Amino acid sequence: MPFLKRYKKSKLGLPPGTIVYTGEERKEPISFTLIEYNEINFEKIEITNISDFFKRKKTNVVSWLTVQGVHDVDIIEILGKEIDLHPIVMEDISNIHERIKIEILDKFLFIVMKSFDFTPENLELTERQISFLLYENKLITFLEEKSNIFNSIINRIQSEFSRIRKLGNDYLLHSLIDIIVDSYFTLLEIIGDKVSDIEEELVTNPDKNTLMQIQHAKHDIIQIRKIIFPIREVINAIIRGDSPIIKEATHIYFRDAYDHIIRIIETLESYRDMVSGLLDIYLSSISNRMNEVMKVLTIIATIFIPLTFIAGVYGMNFLYMPELGWKYSYLVIWIIMLIVAIIMVIYFRRKKWI
Amino acid sequence: MPFLKRYKKSKLGLPPGTIVYTGEERKEPISFTLIEYNEINFEKIEITNISDFFKRKKTNVVSWLTVQGVHDVDIIEILGKEIDLHPIVMEDISNIHERIKIEILDKFLFIVMKSFDFTPENLELTERQISFLLYENKLITFLEEKSNIFNSIINRIQSEFSRIRKLGNDYLLHSLIDIIVDSYFTLLEIIGDKVSDIEEELVTNPDKNTLMQIQHAKHDIIQIRKIIFPIREVINAIIRGDSPIIKEATHIYFRDAYDHIIRIIETLESYRDMVSGLLDIYLSSISNRMNEVMKVLTIIATIFIPLTFIAGVYGMNFLYMPELGWKYSYLVIWIIMLIVAIIMVIYFRRKKWI
Amino acid sequence: MPFLKRYKKSKLGLPPGTIVYTGEERKEPISFTLIEYNEINFEKIEITNISDFFKRKKTNVVSWLTVQGVHDVDIIEILGKEIDLHPIVMEDISNIHERIKIEILDKFLFIVMKSFDFTPENLELTERQISFLLYENKLITFLEEKSNIFNSIINRIQSEFSRIRKLGNDYLLHSLIDIIVDSYFTLLEIIGDKVSDIEEELVTNPDKNTLMQIQHAKHDIIQIRKIIFPIREVINAIIRGDSPIIKEATHIYFRDAYDHIIRIIETLESYRDMVSGLLDIYLSSISNRMNEVMKVLTIIATIFIPLTFIAGVYGMNFLYMPELGWKYSYLVIWIIMLIVAIIMVIYFRRKKWI
Amino acid sequence: MPFLKRYKKSKLGLPPGTIVYTGEERKEPISFTLIEYNEINFEKIEITNISDFFKRKKTNVVSWLTVQGVHDVDIIEILGKEIDLHPIVMEDISNIHERIKIEILDKFLFIVMKSFDFTPENLELTERQISFLLYENKLITFLEEKSNIFNSIINRIQSEFSRIRKLGNDYLLHSLIDIIVDSYFTLLEIIGDKVSDIEEELVTNPDKNTLMQIQHAKHDIIQIRKIIFPIREVINAIIRGDSPIIKEATHIYFRDAYDHIIRIIETLESYRDMVSGLLDIYLSSISNRMNEVMKVLTIIATIFIPLTFIAGVYGMNFLYMPELGWKYSYLVIWIIMLIVAIIMVIYFRRKKWI
Amino acid sequence: MPFLKRYKKSKLGLPPGTIVYTGEERKEPISFTLIEYNEINFEKIEITNISDFFKRKKTNVVSWLTVQGVHDVDIIEILGKEIDLHPIVMEDISNIHERIKIEILDKFLFIVMKSFDFTPENLELTERQISFLLYENKLITFLEEKSNIFNSIINRIQSEFSRIRKLGNDYLLHSLIDIIVDSYFTLLEIIGDKVSDIEEELVTNPDKNTLMQIQHAKHDIIQIRKIIFPIREVINAIIRGDSPIIKEATHIYFRDAYDHIIRIIETLESYRDMVSGLLDIYLSSISNRMNEVMKVLTIIATIFIPLTFIAGVYGMNFLYMPELGWKYSYLVIWIIMLIVAIIMVIYFRRKKWI
Repeated sequence: MPFLKRYKKSKLGLPPGTIVYTGEERKEPISFTLIEYNEINFEKIEITNISDFFKRKKTNVVSWLTVQGVHDVDIIEILGKEIDLHPIVMEDISNIHERIKIEILDKFLFIVMKSFDFTPENLELTERQISFLLYENKLITFLEEKSNIFNSIINRIQSEFSRIRKLGNDYLLHSLIDIIVDSYFTLLEIIGDKVSDIEEELVTNPDKNTLMQIQHAKHDIIQIRKIIFPIREVINAIIRGDSPIIKEATHIYFRDAYDHIIRIIETLESYRDMVSGLLDIYLSSISNRMNEVMKVLTIIATIFIPLTFIAGVYGMNFLYMPELGWKYSYLVIWIIMLIVAIIMVIYFRRKKWI
Repeated sequence: MPFLKRYKKSKLGLPPGTIVYTGEERKEPISFTLIEYNEINFEKIEITNISDFFKRKKTNVVSWLTVQGVHDVDIIEILGKEIDLHPIVMEDISNIHERIKIEILDKFLFIVMKSFDFTPENLELTERQISFLLYENKLITFLEEKSNIFNSIINRIQSEFSRIRKLGNDYLLHSLIDIIVDSYFTLLEIIGDKVSDIEEELVTNPDKNTLMQIQHAKHDIIQIRKIIFPIREVINAIIRGDSPIIKEATHIYFRDAYDHIIRIIETLESYRDMVSGLLDIYLSSISNRMNEVMKVLTIIATIFIPLTFIAGVYGMNFLYMPELGWKYSYLVIWIIMLIVAIIMVIYFRRKKWI
Repeated sequence: MPFLKRYKKSKLGLPPGTIVYTGEERKEPISFTLIEYNEINFEKIEITNISDFFKRKKTNVVSWLTVQGVHDVDIIEILGKEIDLHPIVMEDISNIHERIKIEILDKFLFIVMKSFDFTPENLELTERQISFLLYENKLITFLEEKSNIFNSIINRIQSEFSRIRKLGNDYLLHSLIDIIVDSYFTLLEIIGDKVSDIEEELVTNPDKNTLMQIQHAKHDIIQIRKIIFPIREVINAIIRGDSPIIKEATHIYFRDAYDHIIRIIETLESYRDMVSGLLDIYLSSISNRMNEVMKVLTIIATIFIPLTFIAGVYGMNFLYMPELGWKYSYLVIWIIMLIVAIIMVIYFRRKKWI
Repeated sequence: MPFLKRYKKSKLGLPPGTIVYTGEERKEPISFTLIEYNEINFEKIEITNISDFFKRKKTNVVSWLTVQGVHDVDIIEILGKEIDLHPIVMEDISNIHERIKIEILDKFLFIVMKSFDFTPENLELTERQISFLLYENKLITFLEEKSNIFNSIINRIQSEFSRIRKLGNDYLLHSLIDIIVDSYFTLLEIIGDKVSDIEEELVTNPDKNTLMQIQHAKHDIIQIRKIIFPIREVINAIIRGDSPIIKEATHIYFRDAYDHIIRIIETLESYRDMVSGLLDIYLSSISNRMNEVMKVLTIIATIFIPLTFIAGVYGMNFLYMPELGWKYSYLVIWIIMLIVAIIMVIYFRRKKWI
Repeated sequence: MPFLKRYKKSKLGLPPGTIVYTGEERKEPISFTLIEYNEINFEKIEITNISDFFKRKKTNVVSWLTVQGVHDVDIIEILGKEIDLHPIVMEDISNIHERIKIEILDKFLFIVMKSFDFTPENLELTERQISFLLYENKLITFLEEKSNIFNSIINRIQSEFSRIRKLGNDYLLHSLIDIIVDSYFTLLEIIGDKVSDIEEELVTNPDKNTLMQIQHAKHDIIQIRKIIFPIREVINAIIRGDSPIIKEATHIYFRDAYDHIIRIIETLESYRDMVSGLLDIYLSSISNRMNEVMKVLTIIATIFIPLTFIAGVYGMNFLYMPELGWKYSYLVIWIIMLIVAIIMVIYFRRKKWI
């Protein structure tokens, strides 16, 4: 499952401050889903034009807009102008090669997260950027493409009695981040299975390929750990209360998410240790195979070399070799050779080589 | 003794804030033991209904309730409502896959700890979560199942003259944590024995299996260290005086527990180093075996190859080979071959190969 | 691509405070490019004498002077006296072996950066020092030699509507540093390609040389990481607001540059890990080759040694060897030898050695 | 010199706050030595009853009591009651498995230190606990058994003009700790000698046992480092002025002791590195031996296999083999075989295998 | 170039506070050089008696006294009494086994530094202690023996127009430390050369000795790094402004020295990495040699074993072996054997073993 993504050059040489979409080419129009809810009402609206969003002025609801696609730079610019967003945030939304990070501005809270897409069969992982913009009573999430990752949250909001309906957009943010963190646990399981598979292959039938697989698994685990690691800082900044947008009552929920992240990072580290252990096992199993080959050679050679010598002796053409003329020497020689062979075999048995 | 527990999926996809029991399925009803004591009185009451606990309003005693089982989510919810507990704490009580942690709230102190169950024979370790809720004059402990881990503390409380009777619920908390930390020392001994066993096996009869055992022992030690490690932070938070519920006079006792934890972690680290050392010994013992095999081959081959050559020479059919006709050549050849063999053997002795 | 540059002795033994050019000898006269711009005007002037720069006194523009060459110590001294620069800064400008660093003085901000020159074919990297002096409305950049690294910035300034025209010299500084950081991404790609090349060579045709290449690549990666690493501190000092010369509005841009640096360092670290992995693969592929050689020896020897023994037996000259006289013994012996050989081959097939 | 001491179970299961002696069993009565001195007077008194100590009320002297033995728990309890000592300190005095630590109480300063007993011949190290209790004008030291480790200090106090007579009990404490730290330097030398011995053995005559010795030395060094390491924190706490009992004028002396501890820890670390280096040398020397064995086999086999083949050819029984009938063929064959052998030997010489 | 100096026992057992010279025995009288200068005057005086120094009371000059030799304890004591120096500083001056350190006292600044003496041929390094005592308008430097390390500074002071003449004794201190740090760069070059030498030897002619050299080089590099490392703290304490004796205007110069120290430590670290890399190359080159030996054996054995078998077959004495009687069988057999050999050789070529 190798997924080292090389840095895309597309932005190199361009001035900082230029909004550029850096992902794979996409053509489909960007779609928007708006959900407005409070303790009493719930409304879900598909809008096609970003300006429609800014026309809605309800303040007694939580307004959650999902932007599905960040490849249309114009839309990001319109949005930026409408709410007077800092240009660098606009850039970060479209540049899908950002690190996970938090940007605390006067009236905004901007967070970049990463989720992982994977197909269960071939285990090709794709890193997907999800960014969150929190301000006033609003939360805007930006996805790279249409995705149903947050469907369970939508369902929960629909349910009248869920806690999410009673709390603000900061709790909504927590719920979404929590879903992403949960998806890492699923990823952990897949990696765990992969590691187990390699371990089994190592025991049953190790070959050159196994070594490559071990190296790739190790590389992937380290890679994922690096991508996930900065979440610690992000959530820490929230817990420390750096931004007034997150109310203090919500801190305890983020503290919980923090513990989960620590657990995930620790598990990734223990996987890395296990994979390193597999490498040792692989190398020593190669040594073991070598030993086995050597043993067969040694046993065959050590048994037959002395016998061949004996045969050689009686193949000599000396005129005066008394044994040659005796009647039973041939038989006796066979017996001697048999005894020698048996002694050898017993010796090897003792040494536990056979 | 491998005990890597995979993360249970059960909570994935569920909204944060849902109380879910994440352990193995259990059916037995949850039982409660209430102990109330002060310097003069001691009372032990088995109660069957959690509401009975809240009806008791004595304030001049320490009230210690033990909840044996966290699989009945309803009971946790009742408890939560009665004392106005934060929902996230309620979740943490039932989710037995939490990390060791401390949650300092306005009126509560909540601590998650881990003990290890093990059967001395087969060394299968099971991680057990124990959580403590401290408030007012009360301490509630939550166990996963019935357990006699705290029996020695109950005995001590019964004794009229013990220090525990004179001090508050914070000292009781310390005593319980101290018992758990003590149990880690027992665990250390078992691991130490295991490491010694592997070391002995390594010296007497190493095989493929030994390598696996070394890797598993290493993995277990690292795993246990990771689980135990956060206790440092928990006790540190207490010593720093983050929570007013722990009186300052009790700090010195926690400082002592802190030293024990450091000692345990250090011992685990030294075990890990020892196990890594064992790996080196294993790999080099495999090399040694290989050397031994090679030596036998070399000795046998090196002695007989020249002798076979000599025999081969006199097996040639040239018409004019003067030695063939001499009377004692056969004898002389035997003597020469003997001398060659002896020289070889002496040479190998000198090289210390035999 | 080995580029470990030994420390030049030239400054050893000289008093601290002596301005000395420590690079390779250069003779060409130093040239100056002055760009003055504000939101309305843009002027680009080639000046030949440093004093001309100090005669210009416009304050409503950003004045950007590029000094192409630091080998003429006299010019640095004139400059130092004109603006009352601290002697140690004057030294640092000419000594091209400084580490990346920031020097925050009362009225000046002085930054030393490093770029890398490389020719795509032979991958010889050369470290180039670029220093920045920021004060009042001015920015002076010092290059080791003529270079077009900042051409894209000049183009941008020329464009009337670019953001750079509206902001001060601190934003200009950010743009220049951003260009340098961007060039590191290009470097990363080259290193990545090199690592891939080695990996491929390792799979197809590893030899002694490969090991050297791995070691050199590892060394280079560590070296580059060390050179780049202190940028973190430099940008951190800016973000912390240590110098009033950088306005707070510009901090967010530097925060972005900070994230890029972290990403670069992380990628370098993952390359280092990959190269270490390659070393393991190399060592194990050598083991594998050895195994292959041993296997051929074992197979050939193990098949023919018993056969040679059989032939040896019937080469003995005993008078009474009944088989010798039988009519079909020769044929039978051939058949026996064939059967032995076939059994051996089947055995090896089973063991998966052939 | 293996001395991993397993944690003694004796305290497990006992309530915290119980004073228990955890060392090897001892029967002898505890003896007390009291030294009282000031600039003018010096008195040394052997007392047999701890209460005698508390009857002496001089305040213009430094009172230094040495308690030789901590196995009589009653004495510790009397002492604790007399001066109103915290129970946990009383426990720590008798529990000889404490870590090195400092306990700063209102009126007391309590320090636990470790010295090492060793017999120069067999290098069995024993860890010995020494604790210090400092209050008012008094210093009480607790030893596990009678020891002359502090005799040089007693001698110095006896000398009228020594600095120790002019300074308080805090300087006395420093002198005692300094003696202990000095004893670590002696330990360092012994370890250094041991490492040198192993290195020499490695060069002259490495065997299986050497590997074990290397592992044990490594383990011991790490163990000692771990025991000594916390002294840093102890002395740091003193230097920071955490306790008013240590006057500021004495800080500089402790700073000196701090430097010595750092030097000791650094030396231990360099020993550990050296021992790790020895492991590499050992493993490679095993490889070298293997190579030597292989070379002998190769040389003998490679010389004689072709010769045996030649002999085999002329052992064939073809009717028409012209060479067989020629007069000098036998001689010629010998010459040919000799030439082949010589060419082989020259080839091996060239390759530097002989 | 091994130079691990064992800790000298000489001070063990002596009371702390005793001034003891701990270096090799020296007999020569201690000599003193006094230099007094200000912007206008310069005077260099050889004095023979330390008291002469204290009789000079000029305050409008910088007074720099160099004490060449610290083995006469009496002189240190006189000096200590004259200026009321703390006893521990007096000890530190004579004890040449101190770590690099800074001692900030009320009116004094005391710094211990280390230089390295080495003879270019045999590369035996000797650590030399240099200490500095700064107070009022004075700087006293203590050297272990006569040395010309500071001659270049003396020359500079003599020059009327040098900056050193205009600045105080703190700038003088900086200049002296700068000279010492510069000498480390020379040391770096020597180590670099040594590492290159080992690398070359490794490529051309590696033997057992090379491994020892690698280990020693590694050890030396680590050792030097450890000795130099604490300079960071020393200079940091100065830069932080811990002592008022160093004026703030001088801080920038020390900041420059700090950067140099970082560069030196980094270079040492990269040398250590390179040496570790050499170890890997050495071990793999041993493997390679082994492979070469094995290949020769395999090729010779694999070619001749089948041929010998063929010869053996026709050495059998069966009565009815039709081939024996045919006229050209001998020739045919030779041709067959030749073909077999050629096929083998081609096979080995294909495998790239020849």
